[in-house]
Amino acid sequence: MAPTIAILPEPTDVLAAAVADGGGSVGPLADADGVVWLDSGPLPDELPGRVRWVQLPAAGVERWVGSLPDGPVVTSMAGAFAQPVAEHTLGLVLAGLHRIADSARAREWDDQLRERTRSIEGRTVAIVGAGGIGRALMAMLAPLGAHVIAVTRRGNPVDGAQETLPADRTGEARARADVVVLAAPATPGAPPLIGADELERMPDGAWLVNVGRGTLVDTDALVRALEAGRLGGAALDVTEPEPLPDGHPLWSRPDVLITPHVATAPEAELRHAAERIRANVERFARGEELLGVVDRDAGY
Amino acid sequence: MAPTIAILPEPTDVLAAAVADGGGSVGPLADADGVVWLDSGPLPDELPGRVRWVQLPAAGVERWVGSLPDGPVVTSMAGAFAQPVAEHTLGLVLAGLHRIADSARAREWDDQLRERTRSIEGRTVAIVGAGGIGRALMAMLAPLGAHVIAVTRRGNPVDGAQETLPADRTGEARARADVVVLAAPATPGAPPLIGADELERMPDGAWLVNVGRGTLVDTDALVRALEAGRLGGAALDVTEPEPLPDGHPLWSRPDVLITPHVATAPEAELRHAAERIRANVERFARGEELLGVVDRDAGY
Repeated sequence: MAPTIAILPEPTDVLAAAVADGGGSVGPLADADGVVWLDSGPLPDELPGRVRWVQLPAAGVERWVGSLPDGPVVTSMAGAFAQPVAEHTLGLVLAGLHRIADSARAREWDDQLRERTRSIEGRTVAIVGAGGIGRALMAMLAPLGAHVIAVTRRGNPVDGAQETLPADRTGEARARADVVVLAAPATPGAPPLIGADELERMPDGAWLVNVGRGTLVDTDALVRALEAGRLGGAALDVTEPEPLPDGHPLWSRPDVLITPHVATAPEAELRHAAERIRANVERFARGEELLGVVDRDAGY
Repeated sequence: MAPTIAILPEPTDVLAAAVADGGGSVGPLADADGVVWLDSGPLPDELPGRVRWVQLPAAGVERWVGSLPDGPVVTSMAGAFAQPVAEHTLGLVLAGLHRIADSARAREWDDQLRERTRSIEGRTVAIVGAGGIGRALMAMLAPLGAHVIAVTRRGNPVDGAQETLPADRTGEARARADVVVLAAPATPGAPPLIGADELERMPDGAWLVNVGRGTLVDTDALVRALEAGRLGGAALDVTEPEPLPDGHPLWSRPDVLITPHVATAPEAELRHAAERIRANVERFARGEELLGVVDRDAGY
């Protein structure tokens, strides 16, 4: 029988169609077997006991993870936006090496700019986190001729990476990287992956690109490292704090590019969210394992 | 017997090694069978009669084409820098759709910016010119999920393009394109490929990306089209005039990104130029057809 799925706070046509395509029927919360939650605020205080599944609207679920209902399986959008986020990440990597932010800010032709640009061909890109975003990025880097080092928890070889290293050898990957890409989830309460020591051991001219979570980087340490002038720069789609406050030193640095958490374009987000919801309703209806199940202990 | 190759005005270690790797021997102009010319200025007035080949240092040869010596075969670097130029082009395409120039110019967090971004996935990119740059770009666009329309002189199918159209149907490609990339050589004296009419028939929100030659676009018409506010914007690595003069209206437009003819990073240029010289010396020594032979009538 088709499961009843409540889309809250309000169903949209696209997502109602996704539920129907997945074999569900859209209904009110009181009758719901599953809940698709679209709001960035907290879940309803009380979910009916028959609700066995809650789909959250974001890939990162820090804001909900401390107050999840006990009964149902909870799924995030983890991996659903991998393709658009990887696309934006590639844009940041190329913007960094090609000094596109310098060009964007210029108001006159700069004959010297070319001397500061670098090609990614033959360069080493360390990708910390080989989930969906990391793997999509690897596929995009292949035709560019980059050498990819994937860093994963256990270091099992990742397709699309020339090398894979386990998390406890992150430092080795970082020390060889022309570009370090952070595409890992944040674990609540964990210290930043990239602090003063880590920045110090990056090669001269290297770029730091963060599309994971702002808390992965010690922002003050990054400012100090950039001030020391040895790094190439930083391209950040996420910051800590976020939003980055007016007047923060990162705003005025020529070697910093900040995109305001825009990695997933709205139409891409809607398309990929609908596809994830369709896929999860289908799995839910068949009693199969859902995509993006939140690990309450790990916090993501 | 190894041909003697003069590297002028002065040999460099890297290029002397490339000549040797190709089976040539570096020598003075008086003994030369071939000349590798490294300067952006005119060729020597008189080349010895035994010189049967001249290698020019650039992909575009407008500055030399009117005064080429009669005897020798002349080759350009056409295609040699295809990979780095395509890489920069991809950076411009992503910078355009993801509004990276807006972010680079911002001095505060813009919550509204994401609404203006677009993903390239599923979008149509028309690439005018399916030479080396165009084909390298197609390979880079494949993992991004773009739909590529190649526009070539005769319209013979191009690997890596979902569709290929002949030059006389450029308008059709342009009218369907979310991004129009100009990666064609300039023909001296030809009118711009993109003028007022062509800009008018581009779709709402479309981006124009030019990495070919500035003369491919009617700059005044582009300014007027952008002022009308219907296009997404323009990302230009080449301009007409070039350098773009201080105070030109394109400098201050928020929907314009100008990179000052930097598509080939210096180390990439040197690496690819050396590889092309090596390959051509080898072909010259064997009496094979050279790469990048200049068509004196076509002017490129």
